[in-house]
Amino acid sequence: MPASLITLTTDFGQADHFVGAMKGVILGIAPRARIIDITHEISPYELGEAAFVIAQAWRYFPKGTIHVVVVDPGVGGARRPILAAAGGHYFVAPDNGVLTMIYDAAPARVREISNARLLGKNVSRTFHGRDVFAPAAAHLARGVPAARFGKLIEDSTRFSPLKPTQRSRHVWSGSILKVDRFGNLITNLHIEEFPGVKTRPIELRIGLERVRRLALTYAETEIGERFVIVGSSGYLEVAANQASAAKTLGCGAGAPVELEIFYDRA
Amino acid sequence: MPASLITLTTDFGQADHFVGAMKGVILGIAPRARIIDITHEISPYELGEAAFVIAQAWRYFPKGTIHVVVVDPGVGGARRPILAAAGGHYFVAPDNGVLTMIYDAAPARVREISNARLLGKNVSRTFHGRDVFAPAAAHLARGVPAARFGKLIEDSTRFSPLKPTQRSRHVWSGSILKVDRFGNLITNLHIEEFPGVKTRPIELRIGLERVRRLALTYAETEIGERFVIVGSSGYLEVAANQASAAKTLGCGAGAPVELEIFYDRA
Amino acid sequence: MPASLITLTTDFGQADHFVGAMKGVILGIAPRARIIDITHEISPYELGEAAFVIAQAWRYFPKGTIHVVVVDPGVGGARRPILAAAGGHYFVAPDNGVLTMIYDAAPARVREISNARLLGKNVSRTFHGRDVFAPAAAHLARGVPAARFGKLIEDSTRFSPLKPTQRSRHVWSGSILKVDRFGNLITNLHIEEFPGVKTRPIELRIGLERVRRLALTYAETEIGERFVIVGSSGYLEVAANQASAAKTLGCGAGAPVELEIFYDRA
Repeated sequence: MPASLITLTTDFGQADHFVGAMKGVILGIAPRARIIDITHEISPYELGEAAFVIAQAWRYFPKGTIHVVVVDPGVGGARRPILAAAGGHYFVAPDNGVLTMIYDAAPARVREISNARLLGKNVSRTFHGRDVFAPAAAHLARGVPAARFGKLIEDSTRFSPLKPTQRSRHVWSGSILKVDRFGNLITNLHIEEFPGVKTRPIELRIGLERVRRLALTYAETEIGERFVIVGSSGYLEVAANQASAAKTLGCGAGAPVELEIFYDRA
Repeated sequence: MPASLITLTTDFGQADHFVGAMKGVILGIAPRARIIDITHEISPYELGEAAFVIAQAWRYFPKGTIHVVVVDPGVGGARRPILAAAGGHYFVAPDNGVLTMIYDAAPARVREISNARLLGKNVSRTFHGRDVFAPAAAHLARGVPAARFGKLIEDSTRFSPLKPTQRSRHVWSGSILKVDRFGNLITNLHIEEFPGVKTRPIELRIGLERVRRLALTYAETEIGERFVIVGSSGYLEVAANQASAAKTLGCGAGAPVELEIFYDRA
Repeated sequence: MPASLITLTTDFGQADHFVGAMKGVILGIAPRARIIDITHEISPYELGEAAFVIAQAWRYFPKGTIHVVVVDPGVGGARRPILAAAGGHYFVAPDNGVLTMIYDAAPARVREISNARLLGKNVSRTFHGRDVFAPAAAHLARGVPAARFGKLIEDSTRFSPLKPTQRSRHVWSGSILKVDRFGNLITNLHIEEFPGVKTRPIELRIGLERVRRLALTYAETEIGERFVIVGSSGYLEVAANQASAAKTLGCGAGAPVELEIFYDRA
């Protein structure tokens, strides 16, 4: 039987000792655990970005995987550490909303982590990644049942993800959730909510530009051409072939977009 | 017996969910596979850079290692996914030339990956790293024979790597293949092709400078001194002791260089 | 029994083939070894930074872990490769002072690595990470006894870490050791040496600023507020809530600080 999988998603970067210390703690408690980095490059303190990234990655891991998500501007304060079970996976995180998009994707049972025996011996006030979340995940990986970590809670923190709003019959206001490595602008407009995009002419307005080309693949576009595409997560993206749409449009995360679907045109 | 090794070389960066999703897919299919990152920092779409990096790394892994190389500007288009066997290793990549330097290093048997059973269930049009290359590598790691992936092809894509050209009897034109972390400028001039460099005076011209010092080690040079050295991959490099030759020369990948070997001097 | 753990701390970055080649070499010799990256983002050639990072990370790993530290500006010269045993852990590194803070933390037995059978077959002059340190660590992971690597030495290299100096009865001069991902300025003032900080009013002078607020947690401060906090490694840090103290103060590694403890105030 393969060893337990633990994934890590943090804003710790990779230049400090933070991630190394977390991994050492995990392997000290659960020597057979296998640790996979999702990313440590979440922008510092950006809960929304972390919520988005873990929501795009978790479902591709096998059931039973333990996902540790540490973006924790309130470390040392009153916010609770939590263990959530959802969709056959486990999530260990601060209760600050970073699991919002997981809760949206699958029913979750959430516990406050309160059993001090399952934490580090000396819990610092500034580095719970090492002293709280890593040991909790490692004990879970070793087979400690979820119920031993603490009581179920019903009031775990969620924030309202930026949802598109309808402006008029065929026009919606949305926004950019994230800019990816390639400069693609990922909107909060999901193809499941806007199936008309597949069959009708559209216009996506962003910055000073109006993008009308909907491409099915990058390969069908010209180099440098700007277009809308349904990204691999199902969200509409504004992209450019072998160029950065973010740079050429001068837009980033949070920028507003407007989508019009032309139901009255051929 | 240790589990199969899979290496990853991509231009996906480490700030998005892309690499995490690939690893999840691999471990879902091949739970015992061990995944090693070569790099995810290939410059976006830079096939030549990816071809160089994998060519410098693969031979240091044990035979049987599966190397996944995904730099894929033509994703979703007509370019084929391929599985190449060369030098006792496997390579899973788009057929866009990214394996050119592997083909140069060892005879390769290349197959088109066409067996849909060995891919993801829903293949997106934009993220074949997750939906095509990761599952193919994972099935190979589990022991599916290469022949099951698809038919041998003879026309796999190669590009012409930038080779030096002879300008006159003792002068060659070359170019910079890559700038490394330390600002060293790696040329396409390989010591095996220019053995005279070891025994004769030389001059390497780059930008507005002429570098005549050939050093055997960094340690023998002065701090800040600029010199030519045979790098760990066998290519001539322009380097500076504890400084960035790229910055001080204002040169980068693609810059032309000229090598003269003085056979007529003492 | 779980496989041996090998950690890596280097200044090689993650964009080149260097780290991949090291991992390939390790797994070729010790197929069951488990490799954990501490960081590859040490600033090029910065021995002090590497010494600090490994000193903050090593103790969190299980005993018997092998820590490879390669920041090696003198590669190819006379500096010796060494194997140090300290605190139940092993350290493989160039003898250039990079283990200074390990020697400060635990008594060490240090050997020169001189047994050519435990190195790569062809040792390059520029890449001992791949050709010397990776194979040595891998052979150690396979169970080769430390004594087989070479003779004990007594004169291993240390540098003087920047220690605070006392300026007057209650005033000390110190400096910034490192800026972390969040822009926190980590001083060389350790809480164990300045216990008065916990109970008396203080002032920490840095740049043109005087910081008097000592916070126990980030959560108790205002967003943007600047304060002193005992960091997770025990050093006093100058931090700002959800902001970069380094940026707002315009200070970096090496900047001088002055600490005054007011023993005569309420």
